[in-house]
Amino acid sequence: MPQGKPNTVPDDGLTTRQRRNRPLLMVHTGPGKGKSTAAFGMALRAWNQGWPVGVFQFVKSAKWRVGEERALRVLGASGEGGPVVWHKMGEGWSWTQRDMESSEEAAREGWEQVKRDLAAETHRLYVLDEFAYPLHWGWIDTAEVVAVLRARPGTQHVVITGRNAPPELLDAADLVTEMTKVKHPMDAGQKGQRGIEW
Amino acid sequence: MPQGKPNTVPDDGLTTRQRRNRPLLMVHTGPGKGKSTAAFGMALRAWNQGWPVGVFQFVKSAKWRVGEERALRVLGASGEGGPVVWHKMGEGWSWTQRDMESSEEAAREGWEQVKRDLAAETHRLYVLDEFAYPLHWGWIDTAEVVAVLRARPGTQHVVITGRNAPPELLDAADLVTEMTKVKHPMDAGQKGQRGIEW
Repeated sequence: MPQGKPNTVPDDGLTTRQRRNRPLLMVHTGPGKGKSTAAFGMALRAWNQGWPVGVFQFVKSAKWRVGEERALRVLGASGEGGPVVWHKMGEGWSWTQRDMESSEEAAREGWEQVKRDLAAETHRLYVLDEFAYPLHWGWIDTAEVVAVLRARPGTQHVVITGRNAPPELLDAADLVTEMTKVKHPMDAGQKGQRGIEW
Repeated sequence: MPQGKPNTVPDDGLTTRQRRNRPLLMVHTGPGKGKSTAAFGMALRAWNQGWPVGVFQFVKSAKWRVGEERALRVLGASGEGGPVVWHKMGEGWSWTQRDMESSEEAAREGWEQVKRDLAAETHRLYVLDEFAYPLHWGWIDTAEVVAVLRARPGTQHVVITGRNAPPELLDAADLVTEMTKVKHPMDAGQKGQRGIEW
């Protein structure tokens, strides 16, 4: 429940409105649930504002995010809010060890697409889902990512999810939330279920 | 990234399928962002499964959740997933100190509605948004809430959000995630902005 009262007012030469509408880099990290789910929840707000939303899924899975994907596609096509483009980079490859090299390549290609879209100001909210993994693994250079994000033109908000987000990325972020696991059904022998986990 | 491998298999007499489809009580708490956003993200998954979704907003605000509300109403009306009912209990009252008594009453009325819906098995996912507050403040008895939730019939999933969720609620929950604030734009003198905070 934000109170609307900032703790400090910086001496940055910006008006409150300019500061308020500054493009944000947000990171959801940590071992708990809700990192991606919260990012997709943010996409609902962006859609409601009529903003173009781009989702880049840096993960391969047959069932993860099917609910979010279908919902955002229906919303994007409804004409009542902003358009939605969903890049499913996981298509055609996997994160398994033996397939490492081509996954790495696919992740890099995804990042190239993000760079092109940022340069063209294609979207106003970018959901880079599970993007922390290829950074953590060193597949994509975090310093380059930070430099590109710092230099992005216009008002383009970016939310990056995934465990183990590199410290350099956290330093560059405006907002960082860590999701901590307190209790999980799998600890009590329960597997993930339809409608809850995907 | 759930691996699908539970840490232990409990001796509870249930089959894996029964255990897997057990109704869940989930709590998103802590001082960080993403508690409600992640709950609304879960609603997308439930909607995609065709489940009836009930949202109970235990907070008054002119602008909070407008994006989520509009998105879920559009989705519910699309006929492509489950129906959505949105109870906005904040309508007509406020959480300010001077209005305490009637807010307390409104929160209690909201809980009575939740109880009726649970008894009638009206929804399959309940989002009790900011419900941790009236519990924390003692407006609604946590022991009663836990007893009602434990005894709820059928397969009804419940997700409760809000800071300071009472320990008895966390004990009763199947899944607890704590959102920790690592960094927030308000710390740097930036106020909340449209499309991001609401």
